[in-house]
Amino acid sequence: MQKISLAEKLALFEDSCNPRVIAQLNGQEVKVVKLKGEFIWHHHEREDELFLVVRGRLEMRFRDRTVELGPGELIVVPHGVEHCPVSPEGCEVVLFEPAATINTGNAVHATLTRHTLEHV
Amino acid sequence: MQKISLAEKLALFEDSCNPRVIAQLNGQEVKVVKLKGEFIWHHHEREDELFLVVRGRLEMRFRDRTVELGPGELIVVPHGVEHCPVSPEGCEVVLFEPAATINTGNAVHATLTRHTLEHV
Repeated sequence: MQKISLAEKLALFEDSCNPRVIAQLNGQEVKVVKLKGEFIWHHHEREDELFLVVRGRLEMRFRDRTVELGPGELIVVPHGVEHCPVSPEGCEVVLFEPAATINTGNAVHATLTRHTLEHV
Repeated sequence: MQKISLAEKLALFEDSCNPRVIAQLNGQEVKVVKLKGEFIWHHHEREDELFLVVRGRLEMRFRDRTVELGPGELIVVPHGVEHCPVSPEGCEVVLFEPAATINTGNAVHATLTRHTLEHV
């Protein structure tokens, strides 16, 4: 049981769209990720996904609208709902989701899909 | 699917040790709580509990040591582990934990135990 600093974990890497696992509890994982540019449209069959912005701005695009989030703001994307995270300027995000969640959900992508994640 | 501002939710109430539920996903709940002073020693039989500090300082006391957390720092308290959150100056915290979690765990307290929580 040690404290975990979001800033320290986020300082460990530079690459975008590659979440790192920083904590686990109750079958869920807490991850940090840097996002820049446009991710891909996808949904998760079973997993709800929480995005909490810690730096920068995140646009969560849905098929019918976009929700813009800044630091200290979060959104829950329910399972089955198509979404596409976009961050033109780049942002840093905490994710909270079941341990089995794949970042691109139903959409398998040659370079973006991460089947295993680094634990930092 | 709306964005949720931690600051806006925390501005809705003043009382300490009374968590509010701000989001639900995968059988888990996201709560915000203000803590001031010393809570009570307790553990949770089954639930791991995550504390993420957003303002102020939190001392998480364990039987053998204390971990001090500031803004942007989190700790996971595994189920079964006795702990006592303390914040002499007051702090604001996000909790992630299973929906069934009772704030005082195994320790039933006349005024501190909250069997039902407000959703805000």
